[in-house]
Amino acid sequence: MPRYRIIIEYDGTPFVGWQTQAVGRSIQSSLTDAIRKLTGEDVVVRGAGRTDAGVHALAQVAHIDLARDWPTDRIRDGLTFHLKPDPIAVLECRAVTGDFDSRFSARARHYVYRIVNRSSRLALDSNRAWLVRKPLDADAMNAAASRIVGRHDFTTFRAAGCQATSPIRTLDRLAVTRTGDEIRIEASARSFLHNQVRSMVGSLKLVGEGRWTPDDMAAALAAADRTRCGPVAPACGLYLARVDYAE
Amino acid sequence: MPRYRIIIEYDGTPFVGWQTQAVGRSIQSSLTDAIRKLTGEDVVVRGAGRTDAGVHALAQVAHIDLARDWPTDRIRDGLTFHLKPDPIAVLECRAVTGDFDSRFSARARHYVYRIVNRSSRLALDSNRAWLVRKPLDADAMNAAASRIVGRHDFTTFRAAGCQATSPIRTLDRLAVTRTGDEIRIEASARSFLHNQVRSMVGSLKLVGEGRWTPDDMAAALAAADRTRCGPVAPACGLYLARVDYAE
Repeated sequence: MPRYRIIIEYDGTPFVGWQTQAVGRSIQSSLTDAIRKLTGEDVVVRGAGRTDAGVHALAQVAHIDLARDWPTDRIRDGLTFHLKPDPIAVLECRAVTGDFDSRFSARARHYVYRIVNRSSRLALDSNRAWLVRKPLDADAMNAAASRIVGRHDFTTFRAAGCQATSPIRTLDRLAVTRTGDEIRIEASARSFLHNQVRSMVGSLKLVGEGRWTPDDMAAALAAADRTRCGPVAPACGLYLARVDYAE
Repeated sequence: MPRYRIIIEYDGTPFVGWQTQAVGRSIQSSLTDAIRKLTGEDVVVRGAGRTDAGVHALAQVAHIDLARDWPTDRIRDGLTFHLKPDPIAVLECRAVTGDFDSRFSARARHYVYRIVNRSSRLALDSNRAWLVRKPLDADAMNAAASRIVGRHDFTTFRAAGCQATSPIRTLDRLAVTRTGDEIRIEASARSFLHNQVRSMVGSLKLVGEGRWTPDDMAAALAAADRTRCGPVAPACGLYLARVDYAE
């Protein structure tokens, strides 16, 4: 069966998340429906990152197996058409070999978290960023972020219900930068634990407010204790920005 | 009467524009209603730029006269509260002298126009940018833009119904840059004619597609003839980004 790799953009706001659930609309189920409308086939769509409810993607990657060959532009445009009115668009489609797996072949995942740091609510970016009213020190946040980069036990920063067998991950990059009112946090790793980015961002916010020092961030990581994590940051600020593969 | 200068962000999508009209909801009328709820007063809100239906603002500037002194934070937060659920937020409020006029004291207005240049529709940026599917040459657009910077008769690039007494304006900056799929056009002038930015952007798009050369752009300007303008770009890509004053 020919396999296709698709790159998908979505606004996560109206969805229960990437993964199909018993109740509610998921990005995965919207894609399954669109594929059925286009090809008549029932296909399982496998994604590189199982984003939670409300989390966005600039470039989620998934793969699908179809019964026959399709022009890749027709898959891209046909799925995007049938996905309407859902806020999901297929940006790219490419034929890949059968050993390509969107999840297991991924070499790196890149997330971006957007904080808008001001007193007034968001008129243009509601559901697109986390509004934090207390002034945040982005330099302190960045100093704290650098303390947890590397290969560690990330138990402190993983959801209680995380299914991964090991809490050990290698965080390749965690960088905090400010431009005007906006603070961007960029996180890169081969893979992340469940809620890891939002858990790290929620803790970095405590550093930004001056309630934690960068040493507290390092100590929270070293404790490998979920109760030492700051309040988890909301989903609306998180974007799956890119997934890298070998080729 | 104490005068206050406010800076306002809004999503222009649901509005008939800045200015109050016979029918439909305007940003100006939403602000008037919010001021009435906060202070009990009926006040005319004067803005620096009369944005059209669907045009956004990152930082529109307006001034209001109130009967008594108010703490500026209370104006900012009170208006933002009473503006709910409209996508309008007051970012800043400051007391100014009676000779300050948001419109006539403005030294420069800065607009940004966002084009997303790709084949798939916008999932995250619908109503926030102009989707152009044909590949655009941003370098050619920038070369064409530089040909119309300066003091000129902009009749070609003004709406037929423009009320300004003179079509002469000084365009201080018109720059086109590309980052990935996104093309940003930045336009700065002391003041603009009605529909001037969208008219210039619509013509620059023809250059980007290769249908016009930069020379055609210069010739269209020199003709001072509205029929020589390209199709006016849609409102959803335009943002009033900043207004400068003397102080």
